[in-house]
Parts: sequence; structure tokens; C-alpha cells
Amino acid sequence: MTDEVTEPLALDPDRLFPEGEKSRRIARELYAEVAEAPIVSPHGHVDPNLLLNDEPFPDPVELLITRDHYVTRLLHASGVSYGQVYGGGDPREMWRVFCAHWDALQGTASAYWLRHELGDLFGVNEEPSAGSADRIYDRIQSRLAQDDFRPRALFNRFSIDVLATTDDPLDDLAAHAAIAESGALGGRVVPTFRPDAYMDPTAPGFAERMGRLVGDRADDFDAYLEALRARRAYFIEHGAVSVDHGVRSMRTLDLPRDEAAALYRRAVAGELSAEQSAAFTAHMLTEMAGMSVDDGLVMTVHPGVFRNHDSATHARYGADTGHDIPIGVEYTSNLRPLLEKHGSAEGFHLVLFTIDETTFSRELAPLAGYYPSVFVGAPWWFIDAPDAVQRFRAATTETAGLTRGSGFIDDTRAFLSIPARHDMSRRSDSAYLARLVAEGRMPMPAARRAIVNLTTEQPRKVFKL
Amino acid sequence: MTDEVTEPLALDPDRLFPEGEKSRRIARELYAEVAEAPIVSPHGHVDPNLLLNDEPFPDPVELLITRDHYVTRLLHASGVSYGQVYGGGDPREMWRVFCAHWDALQGTASAYWLRHELGDLFGVNEEPSAGSADRIYDRIQSRLAQDDFRPRALFNRFSIDVLATTDDPLDDLAAHAAIAESGALGGRVVPTFRPDAYMDPTAPGFAERMGRLVGDRADDFDAYLEALRARRAYFIEHGAVSVDHGVRSMRTLDLPRDEAAALYRRAVAGELSAEQSAAFTAHMLTEMAGMSVDDGLVMTVHPGVFRNHDSATHARYGADTGHDIPIGVEYTSNLRPLLEKHGSAEGFHLVLFTIDETTFSRELAPLAGYYPSVFVGAPWWFIDAPDAVQRFRAATTETAGLTRGSGFIDDTRAFLSIPARHDMSRRSDSAYLARLVAEGRMPMPAARRAIVNLTTEQPRKVFKL
Amino acid sequence: MTDEVTEPLALDPDRLFPEGEKSRRIARELYAEVAEAPIVSPHGHVDPNLLLNDEPFPDPVELLITRDHYVTRLLHASGVSYGQVYGGGDPREMWRVFCAHWDALQGTASAYWLRHELGDLFGVNEEPSAGSADRIYDRIQSRLAQDDFRPRALFNRFSIDVLATTDDPLDDLAAHAAIAESGALGGRVVPTFRPDAYMDPTAPGFAERMGRLVGDRADDFDAYLEALRARRAYFIEHGAVSVDHGVRSMRTLDLPRDEAAALYRRAVAGELSAEQSAAFTAHMLTEMAGMSVDDGLVMTVHPGVFRNHDSATHARYGADTGHDIPIGVEYTSNLRPLLEKHGSAEGFHLVLFTIDETTFSRELAPLAGYYPSVFVGAPWWFIDAPDAVQRFRAATTETAGLTRGSGFIDDTRAFLSIPARHDMSRRSDSAYLARLVAEGRMPMPAARRAIVNLTTEQPRKVFKL
Repeated sequence: MTDEVTEPLALDPDRLFPEGEKSRRIARELYAEVAEAPIVSPHGHVDPNLLLNDEPFPDPVELLITRDHYVTRLLHASGVSYGQVYGGGDPREMWRVFCAHWDALQGTASAYWLRHELGDLFGVNEEPSAGSADRIYDRIQSRLAQDDFRPRALFNRFSIDVLATTDDPLDDLAAHAAIAESGALGGRVVPTFRPDAYMDPTAPGFAERMGRLVGDRADDFDAYLEALRARRAYFIEHGAVSVDHGVRSMRTLDLPRDEAAALYRRAVAGELSAEQSAAFTAHMLTEMAGMSVDDGLVMTVHPGVFRNHDSATHARYGADTGHDIPIGVEYTSNLRPLLEKHGSAEGFHLVLFTIDETTFSRELAPLAGYYPSVFVGAPWWFIDAPDAVQRFRAATTETAGLTRGSGFIDDTRAFLSIPARHDMSRRSDSAYLARLVAEGRMPMPAARRAIVNLTTEQPRKVFKL
Repeated sequence: MTDEVTEPLALDPDRLFPEGEKSRRIARELYAEVAEAPIVSPHGHVDPNLLLNDEPFPDPVELLITRDHYVTRLLHASGVSYGQVYGGGDPREMWRVFCAHWDALQGTASAYWLRHELGDLFGVNEEPSAGSADRIYDRIQSRLAQDDFRPRALFNRFSIDVLATTDDPLDDLAAHAAIAESGALGGRVVPTFRPDAYMDPTAPGFAERMGRLVGDRADDFDAYLEALRARRAYFIEHGAVSVDHGVRSMRTLDLPRDEAAALYRRAVAGELSAEQSAAFTAHMLTEMAGMSVDDGLVMTVHPGVFRNHDSATHARYGADTGHDIPIGVEYTSNLRPLLEKHGSAEGFHLVLFTIDETTFSRELAPLAGYYPSVFVGAPWWFIDAPDAVQRFRAATTETAGLTRGSGFIDDTRAFLSIPARHDMSRRSDSAYLARLVAEGRMPMPAARRAIVNLTTEQPRKVFKL
Repeated sequence: MTDEVTEPLALDPDRLFPEGEKSRRIARELYAEVAEAPIVSPHGHVDPNLLLNDEPFPDPVELLITRDHYVTRLLHASGVSYGQVYGGGDPREMWRVFCAHWDALQGTASAYWLRHELGDLFGVNEEPSAGSADRIYDRIQSRLAQDDFRPRALFNRFSIDVLATTDDPLDDLAAHAAIAESGALGGRVVPTFRPDAYMDPTAPGFAERMGRLVGDRADDFDAYLEALRARRAYFIEHGAVSVDHGVRSMRTLDLPRDEAAALYRRAVAGELSAEQSAAFTAHMLTEMAGMSVDDGLVMTVHPGVFRNHDSATHARYGADTGHDIPIGVEYTSNLRPLLEKHGSAEGFHLVLFTIDETTFSRELAPLAGYYPSVFVGAPWWFIDAPDAVQRFRAATTETAGLTRGSGFIDDTRAFLSIPARHDMSRRSDSAYLARLVAEGRMPMPAARRAIVNLTTEQPRKVFKL
């Protein structure tokens, strides 16, 4: 698989642009409008303590591999055991294994981002391989020792305007407060309310969690709702702009209050069947939408994932280890109860993400093309990749235009990949718009407005930033 | 969103063609074969009274906005209330709102058609915007006052050979008869039998409607079938060539006669459950296919839509106000009872439309590539758009070739958009065929035959025109 | 439809390559790396007796039409009766009918392959048409009389390194043994174990088949499993490398042993409901995976097909007559029981094919991007076609890279089409990789390694050849 001959690593300044002379020229012009724009990142998974503690990154493996399950999963598929990946052995040895498997990543979005990071941030000029592994390791390691490679310095160098983290509803948000007080960052770090484990009676430890959330009236539905509202308010005080839901199904329900209350009591008592638990979660999505109508927090939903598909790996190495696998999702019928109740509420914003691409043209664009509350989330996770982005734009724009999306979301826990991801998005959108202009489907001035809107205005508007 | 600087509106003569020099040249040659061909429109929603009364269009808003729910829905999504859109206020004010929101339509098929109409029909030479709104309004208004902008003059200028309307089975078709008698049109206006409300026991007023259709034996299944046959015959006398079905599910059943008759009796009595009603509708699709086998009317089906998704808007502003939302559809298993009974019947034509693009390569092309009765409907509604058409052709041609489709269907109630829509289809098909030729996959003479066939011969053959 | 004027048939040496100058040059370079590589065909449906008997092909119709249900179905859809196609009448007359309907095949993968075969193998230089039919017939017929057009000579001329057939578990594999003993072929012909009818209690003659497989303890589940193991061992002795499953649903189950045994006993007794039969088959997939873990045979699955959709044609003309129609498939949830048990087993290879393209990016690439056992099957059947291959690569590579696929599978019973199919695949992959290189997403040396890997190394590795 690997090749001992060193190959140059070069970042083509025109990468991702179309090959035709006319459309390439247009793409360059559009990209120039936003290439240096600040980064607005309203949803992601960077640990705020990274920015609070501002410790140097320990080594290339911790920096680029073990925190990034997009990468570890492909090593696993290629036969590298998770014992080696997550075992904490000699990082140089692990780095050699990674470089020897570099061809397994060729063509993936991860390889694209990593090449950008290696070339742009670390000045690496050769492709990873068994032969180049040590040289690249040493180069990265020497940079990591420099002060301008600490997290805060990078945050500022990346021109991050807003960075949202994802947080447990009971988190005290002390890290966020301390970061804000420090005044060390040129942009905001804001928390995001992620209540999945507080809405799903099948989540391990649900009753105990309710005890911590609600207190001594833990089985009282009104107290439960009140506690959720209070924690949302606390998050808002600390700068939060959105609530994120990761659910398997997009099903929503609007149950009679007493029925929902009864389900909740039995949920705390551990008496619900799987179907009843699902009904409770479906109802709670509608409740949370109502709270968003009241308090203004944007509601985002990431449905359609079978989490922790390999239970043995989950038991041994925990969640987010590369085996969350997508499933089909249905939005049109499932969302109706929620939208009937709140879809036309003033100021309500509901951002619907998907990995089920079939829903872009069939359901999400039609919904966002009618309901003022609904926005189509940017391609998420596996489909946050150059070709998938072209498919996304082609599937949604003809129905919903260019003003009904969320703007780009990097959704990453790999801090160093943030500029590469946003740059990829800007290039992809420039390439798409260039095609529309070249095909006589959009005038150039409108395309110039669109690239700026997609890059910075739209995420600020949708996430109320 | 809007830009006060006036921007030129220009129609690129090569719009929608590929950028490559070779394929662009081929696309131009193919398009030239059909650019001026007459319009064959075997399915649409133009009101025949428009052509009967031949009144001048009152104003740009009535002409281009309020009749077109493709447009109103995007205004609604952008925050323009339907109170303003449908409220009948000052049209000039509404036109300004529309122009100020023009960027919300950029990239959509509607913007493409509207730009074609503005530039080609009205000679408008600047993009809509807050700044240009009044000038464009005045220009359109002045044209509408001219006799050659009346509906009949436009019908003839558009070179419409056949225009099908969509009609209630109990319609007396007087408008169609009067239009035919007038001799004023250079082409035919033919009705289409649309029996949805007569086959769905859950439709409001079903029993009463049966009374009107069947008469005093309203609960007699044989009388019901006989009445449907009689109305079909009446439509045929008035020029109808097809029956159109808009159903949520593609499910078909072939029930024993007594079981179907019992369901019907209970349907009229209002005693069916939702599941039983669905079964009745599924059975009736097979009955209607049988009638098509007998009387030769082409059967078209538009399944997979959740109609009137926002019940509050439906209650206030009626149907066709932009919130019919697609859902997934299954054809292979669902159609089997109908196809087992009638799929090989001599002369039977069954045209299957979809908005669920996943079915093109998986189900519709394989079905149409075997059953002589089955034809794949042209991309419908949201996917009647340039990129979606390329996806449609790419998804169906490799399996079913170019002779198993319906030919283009505009399906529109926006009369003025008809030439723009057919032109878009001709350009899109030329672009697709040019790619096949340029990639060495089809000889040029075959591509020339194909573009002519797709444009005029195929719809005439499929719809027996 | 047809055109009496003779049109030249020419094979563009750059066919399927992109039009852009840069990417075309890259595609040519990549294709040159593999254009002459030997053919590795680990799954297909060629009859081994063809190579054993080595008789001359009788005529063009037997050679190119009646054995190829990809072609016969399109003739059927175009109104040619199966009575004529399969009736065994004058082949020259049937050939004329075929040529007169050539335009019905334009744009399909079949037309692409046939044109390649006519031009490259037979030196035909005009497109089929009513006018050219007799000339082409005579030219093919004269070649078929030559010794170098016998099956074995063609096998060697095609540079086939491995050709897998598909065989009944009780086949004695005498043909394979005799071919191997003959020493006449430059490559291997290996059998494939295809146990569908032995795992599906609803298959006609199931109990009787169990009698033949298991013997006097036909209703003993352990004896049944033992008999399957024994037959697998027999196939391995005769060179088999894989077991192929054609199932309607991808559902798998891991039932308790006694429950599975009870289902089996009742299956042999003909007492299972449809649902119980499906559960038995689902359980047996997990059992067969376990046997693959033990004996090393690669497990391939071709799910999601409604076989013999037109029962009248099936009754009259048998299976594989063009009306197997795809249905949607779900992998993520359905495969979990099997993968929980065997997904991480050392050396287990599970190749998942699909005709449901929606699963490529949503389910198959994510599964293959994590489980070392899972490989994404090459586009199968209707989607083994140029545009579909580009969609497949674009949908899977960004998630799973280029090393998690099966390599190309021709899956054909049309022996003469094998080189055309492999050549099409090599061109398509070259075109795809050229785009990645041209867009700055993959360095050229990696693309060179990738095209070689995709063409010969990957199928050898995945199928353990």
C-alpha cells in the first residue's frame, strides 16, 4: 500500500474549482470575496478547556489522530487495532502506523483537511508515507513547542469570530465564563445546550439524571419542564444561542399534557416500553420547540444515526470511536405535529441536519422553502465533503434558493481542522455558484452577494449571532 | 438582501449548455433542432376560462405571483405574510415586496423561468430589485394593455399544439367546447379527468359527491364504476387523452369484487377506518387501470405528496398555497397487483411521476425498461429544474434508454411560464445528450433523433396525441 | 425509430474520459496503467459448460441477445413479444428485429457494451439499424465459424486470470474439475456457492431439497448446518473463494439455537408463516457468516430485488427474463446482529452489493469505513453503467476512501461482454481519479497506485485470490 519514495505535498491554490476556463475564473473571483473572512462556527465539539488551559498540544497523534474519529475509524477498517490507536503507546510509533496507512485515507474529506493542515499550518512539504513519517513527526513536534501553536494563539490566528461548544445541560459553564473573562481571545466561545440524555428514557441513568436535574420533585413533569427552562436560561446567560438534539428518529408528537406527564412519571420509574420511550422523546421535541419559541434559542436537530453500532468497541473504548452509522430519516410526516404547533411562530428557528441525502430535494428543501422557521442544515459529518457539498447545493437550491440554509457548520472536535473545513466550504460554494453563473442561471452580482451571505451573514442570521 | 444598484438582466443564448468547447458545440446543434418546435403540453393546470374569456391579465402580481405557489411559498419562507400575498392589496406594493425579495429566488427554477419571461416576453433588461421594481412594473403593465398580450394571442405566439387542463370528473367541459368552437386557437385545449376526490373516502364530502356522481344508487359499487366509465366517455368525447391520479401512496390492490363493493358501501356510509379507506383507494387504482385498458385513456399518477402540510394556512388561504410537501414513495411492490392484472395489456399506458428521486434508478427505470405499459414521468414540480433534469436523465437512461419516458410535462398553472419551461427542458436535454456524444457514448445522428423524439414525438406517442 | 441510412460505428479511444484538457490527459495516463491488465472476475454467471464443451457460438442472436436479459427486457418494453425473442425462430429474423430497435438501447450500458463488442471483436463498422442488420449478421456469423472465436480461445484472448461461476450447492462441479484438468485455459474457472434456495423455506420444493442436501435426518438443524459446511468444503476443494446470497431483505438475526432449530424443523414440515420464514432466512445469514469465519469463504450479498415481478412471463419463460425489479434496502439496522457476532472476526470478508444507490453514502461507506470485514460491492446490475459508477465513487470515496470496495465485478452471463465491461470500469475509474487529481484532491502518484489497486489488487485481496 505504501510507497517509500517521497512524494511532494502541495496545496493547489485552485483546488476544488471547476476546470473550465470561464467557470474557474468566476470561482476564483467569488472565493476571493470570502477567503479571508472571519470564521463563524455556530456548532461544534471543541472542548472549551482546550482554550481555557491553553496547554501546548502534546504530540501529532493526540493532535491529529486520536481526537478525530473520522480518522481512527479508517485505521480500524484497515486493520489497525483500537488497542494500538487508543492504547496510549509511543506516539511516534502510532504516527508511523498512521503514515503507512495514508493511502487508505486518499480521496476522503479527512485526507483533504489533513493535507491542508500539514501544508498550511506546519509547512510539511511531503505526503505522509512510511518513509516520510519520522520527518513529518519531527516537524510537527518542533512547531508544537512554539508558543504561537498554543490553542489560544491558533484561535486568534484562525480569525475565529464565534466558536460554539456542545455541553451537558448541567454543566456549570465555568470554562466558558473563565475564557470570556480572560479577554485572551479575539472571538466568542459560546456553549450549546445538548439535552439528549435528559429527554430519552432509554439513556442509561435516566432516573438518576432526573434527580440531578429536577431535584426532589424528580417525577413531576411540570418541575421537569421548569428545570429544563431554568437550565436553558442559564445557558443563555452564558452566551448560548442554540439547543442541539441528536435523536435517532425525527418523530415528533404533541401529546395531551396529562398523557405526557404520565409518560414522564413512568419514565422516571423505569416503566416505559421502548415504544413509549420513543413517544416521550417525540413529545419532548415539541416541548423543546415551544421553549425555543419562548426563549429564542435556535433549535437544531441531528437525527438518523445508529450510535455505537459495535457494542464491543463501545464497551471498551467509549462513544465517538467511529462506529455511529447513519440510517434513513423521514421529516415530512414526522415533523408535522411540531410544525403545526410552532412552525409559524415568530422568530422560531429550526435547523434540520441530515446524513440521509435523499431528504435534501424530497423533504428538507420543500419544508425550508415554505416554513419561515425551517432551515436546511449544511451537509453534516460524512457528507461534509467536496462532492457531497455539490450534491447538497444542487439538490436544495433549485427548490429553496440560497437563503434557506444554515450556513456552514464544521461540527468538529478536531480544533486544527477548523480553518481547513471552512476553507473547503468556501471553495465548494464558490465552485457551485461559478457553475450557476457560467450556465447563465445567476448574474455575477447576485453570486457575489450569495457567497458572502453563505459564508458569514447566513450563519449569523440563522443562529442569531 | 437587496441591492439598490440596477443590474442588467440578460438571457445567455447558451444558457444551461455545458462549458466544454466540444460538448457546447454539440448542445447548440441539438438545441437548434427543437428550439422552434411547437409546444406539446399533455398535463398542466391552466384554467380553460383564461383562454375562453381572453381577458387582459390585470397586473404583474396576478400574472406572475399569486397564481404561482412555487413563488408565493418562497416569499412566505422569507417572512412575507400570506395576508399580504393573497390579501388583494395594492398590486404595485406587492410587486415591490416581491422585487425586494428577488435574491431569495436566485438559483431556483422559478427565478430561471421568471427571468426568461421578463426578458423574452416583456423586454425587461434589469434584474428585479427594490430599485428597479417600479420600472419593471410599469413596463409589464403597459404590455398587458396591448391586445397581443391577451391569453389567446399568447397561446398562438407560444406555438402551443396541445394544452391539457386538469378537470373535475363532473365538470361539464363547456369551456373546452366553447374554445374548440371559437376556432381562435392554433392548437387544441383538452381536458384531463382527475378523479382523486371520487376515489378517496377520506376526502371531505365524499358521500355527497357520490350522490352527485352516481345518483340514486349512490351506494352501489357497480353503479359507481358505471358512472365513472360514463364520465370518462364524456371526457373522451371532449378530447381528453388521460386520467390523472394524485395519491399519497402508490399502493394498489386487486380485491375480490364483493370485498371492494362492501368497502364502497361502507365508504358512502362513512364507516371506513383510515386503513380501509386506503385499501379502497388502492383497489380503485387497479379498477381505473382496467378502465384505461378498455377506453384507451392514458393513466398518469403523481404520488407521494403530503398535501396542505400547514393546516392553518390551508384553512385560511385554501389549497395550492405552497405547502404540499413530498414524502417517500415505493413503486415496485405497491404497483405489482395493478401490473399483474394490466401491465401487459395491449395499448395500456401508465405514466409514473415522482418527486422521490431515489426511485428513478431503483424502481421506475427498471419497471419502464420491462413493462411496455410503463413510462417514466418527466421530473415533476420541485425537480423540474436544470440540475434535477440532469440527475433524472443520468439516473434513468442507462437502465431504460431514451424511449421509455413521458416526454416533457410542464404541469403548470402559470400560463406565461409555459414557453420558458419547455425551452428549459429542450436545453437541458440537449446538454445531456451532448455529454453522451462528447463522451463517446452515443453517435451524433442518434442524438439528433433523440432530441426530436424527446421534445415532440415521445409525448405525442405516450399521450396518444 | 430506425434510420435506413447507414451510420458509422466508431469506438472513441477517449470514451468516458472527461472533456477538460487537463483531466483528460490525466485520465489517459491512468487508463494506460491498466488498459492491458488481466481480467479478475470474482463473481459472474457464465455457464462453465460453455468453456468445457468449447462449441462454436451458434449465431449472433444466441450470442448477444437471448442470453442477455439486460437486452431482452428493453425489446419487451418496446413491444417485441417474448414469444418472438425466446421462441427459437429464425435467428436472422430476430436479429433484424433487434437492429430495428437499436435506438431503444441508445444511452444504456448494454448499448455501450454491444458497440464495444461489435467494433472491437467483430470489426463491425456501422451502427445496427434495419438497413445494416443483414450485413452485421453475416459478418458476426462468419467470425463465429472461425476457431479463434470458440469460448476457450476467447477466454485466453481476453486475458482472463480468474473467472468465477455461480453454482448450486449440490452441483458436483464436474465441469470445473474437467476444465482445470484440461489445462486449456490461461486462467482459473472457480465455482461460487449460491445457497439461496437452501435457506429460504418459501422457495418451491424446499423440503425435497433438504432431503437431497441433508439426507435421512432432513429435519435436524445440526445435520442441516453440517451438510452446508460439508458442501462448502467441497466447493473449497474445487477452488471456490466465495458464497453468494441473493436475498430480498438484508435482515439478519441471531436467534437462540433451539429457536432456530425449531424454525428449521417446521420449515421442512412446511409449517412456517411468511414472517417465520423470513426470520429463518435472516438467522441463516448469520449462521453462514459464522461458517465464513471458520472456513474463510468470502460472503457476498446481493439484496433488494423483487424477483420475477411479472408472474405470467415467469411461468412461461422462466427466471432471468428481465423483470427482476429492485426495491429499497436497509443495511445499518438489519446487519447489526450479524456484525455484532462476526463483524470483527479475523479474516472475515463481507461484500455488500446494492442497487439502492441511497445506501452508498448513508450506510455502506460508513459501515465499510469502520468494520474491517465489510467491503462495498461495485455498482451492480442496472447501476453498472458509466454515470452510475461516477455517482458510486463520489458517494463512497469521501467517506470510505478507495481501499474499502470489492473491486470491479462484472456479474454477467454474457461471456462476450466481459472485456467491454472491465474496460468500461477501468475507464470510469480513470475518469473519476482524474477529476480528483485535477481538483487538487489527490496527488498523481497516489492516483496511479489507486487505479492499479482498484483494477487488480483489490479484487484479489477482497476475494482472497
